[in-house]
Amino acid sequence: MSNPCVIPTMVQDTLGDGRWMSQHKRIKAECQGKEPDVVLIGDSIVSFLSLQPIWNELFAPLHCLNCGIGGDRTEHVLWRIKDGIFENIKPKAVVIHIGTNNIDQPPENVAEGVLEVAKLVREVLPETFILVDSLLPRGQTSNPVRLRQDEVNQIVERKLPSIPRTKFLEIGSDLLQSDGTLSHLDAPDYLHFSEAGYRKSFTLVHRELVKILAQAQPHHA
Amino acid sequence: MSNPCVIPTMVQDTLGDGRWMSQHKRIKAECQGKEPDVVLIGDSIVSFLSLQPIWNELFAPLHCLNCGIGGDRTEHVLWRIKDGIFENIKPKAVVIHIGTNNIDQPPENVAEGVLEVAKLVREVLPETFILVDSLLPRGQTSNPVRLRQDEVNQIVERKLPSIPRTKFLEIGSDLLQSDGTLSHLDAPDYLHFSEAGYRKSFTLVHRELVKILAQAQPHHA
Repeated sequence: MSNPCVIPTMVQDTLGDGRWMSQHKRIKAECQGKEPDVVLIGDSIVSFLSLQPIWNELFAPLHCLNCGIGGDRTEHVLWRIKDGIFENIKPKAVVIHIGTNNIDQPPENVAEGVLEVAKLVREVLPETFILVDSLLPRGQTSNPVRLRQDEVNQIVERKLPSIPRTKFLEIGSDLLQSDGTLSHLDAPDYLHFSEAGYRKSFTLVHRELVKILAQAQPHHA
Repeated sequence: MSNPCVIPTMVQDTLGDGRWMSQHKRIKAECQGKEPDVVLIGDSIVSFLSLQPIWNELFAPLHCLNCGIGGDRTEHVLWRIKDGIFENIKPKAVVIHIGTNNIDQPPENVAEGVLEVAKLVREVLPETFILVDSLLPRGQTSNPVRLRQDEVNQIVERKLPSIPRTKFLEIGSDLLQSDGTLSHLDAPDYLHFSEAGYRKSFTLVHRELVKILAQAQPHHA
C-alpha cells in the first residue's frame, strides 16, 4: 500500500480563490530574492509565527524566511520543494515543522512523510543544517491525536540520525500544564498558538538556530 | 431543497482531538461568567482577532467577549447559540462575522445562513443591537470566491433591515489595493489577517461599537 504522505502533491484549488498557489509563488519568489540564512518550512504553525511579535524579535534578525502554508501536509511540502522553492539559495539552516495535518494517517505514514521532507531538503541543500521540530500538542486534554503525534515524534527522532547534519528538536514540553491540559491562553483553539504559546515552543528553535549559525560562520584568522 | 447553511449542526470530531467542543464549552462558560457588554461571534476571523494587539487595545476595554471558532460555518454558529451560549447574559451589542466557510454553497444559501444567525440572536437577545460584518476579501487577486462573497454581502445588506435594531457594516474596502490585490502584509495566506489587516477592517467595527455603547448608556439626569 503506498503512503500518501510521501507522494509530492499539489493542493487543488477546489473553491476558486487560488490561495495555495498564490502563497507558493510568493514564497518561491521570496526565496530567490532574499537569500535567507534560515528557512522555516511547514504548515500554519510556521505561517502564523510571522504574525506574532516573536517573529520580528527573534527570527527576522537571523535573516529567516517563512515558508509556511496553512493546511499543508508533508506531501504538499514535498511538492513545493520539488517545484524548486530552494533552487539557487544556500541557507545555513532549514527548520522543518510539518505533519499535524497528516494525522488522519497512521503514525508510521506521517513519520515517513516528515523524514521524506528531511531527505529531500538534504538532497537539494547538501550543506545546510536541518532541524526537525516535534509535533506540538493539540486538543485541550489528552486525546488520541496527541498519542498518535507522540508516536510520530518518537519514530522521527529515532530515524532522523540516518540523515547527515540533522537534529530532532522536542519543543512542546513547556506547553502542557501539570494536569496535561493545553491552556487556551497559549492556544485559543487548542491547535494554533498565541504569542505566549509560541514563546514556550519556538524560543527553543531560536536558541538552536543561534548555535547553528555561530558554527556556520567562517573563522577568520 | 433544504439549505444546509440554516440547519443548526454540531461539528463532528472526526480526528479525535475534541477541539471544537472544547472551544464551545469554554466559550459557553466564559459568557456566563464574564457578563460581556459586547459579544463577537463567528469563525477564525473572529477567533484570531484576540491574538493581535488590536484586541487588547480596542476591544477588551469595551468588555468584549470573543466567541469565534475557527472553521465555523453559519450552521455551527446556529447550533452553538441554540445550545445556549447566550443564555442569562445581556450584552449591549453582538457582532456577527460568519459565512466565508460556507462559500462552497450558492450565495443565496450563504446569505440565508447569515440572516438566520442574526434572526436567532434577535430571538434570544431581544434588546441587543446586532452588527453584521461584510465578508472580507480572500485570495490574492480577483477570483470567483470574492464575487460570490460580494453577492452574499449584497443580499445580507438588502434583507437585514427586516430584523429590528440591526446594521450591516461594510468593513473590507480598505483591504484591497488599487489593482484589486490583497497584500500578503495584510493577509499572509490571503484569508487570515495580520495586525495591519485587522486594523484596516476591524477598526470600523470598533468605531461602530463605541457609538452603540454610548447610545446604550442609561441617561442620568
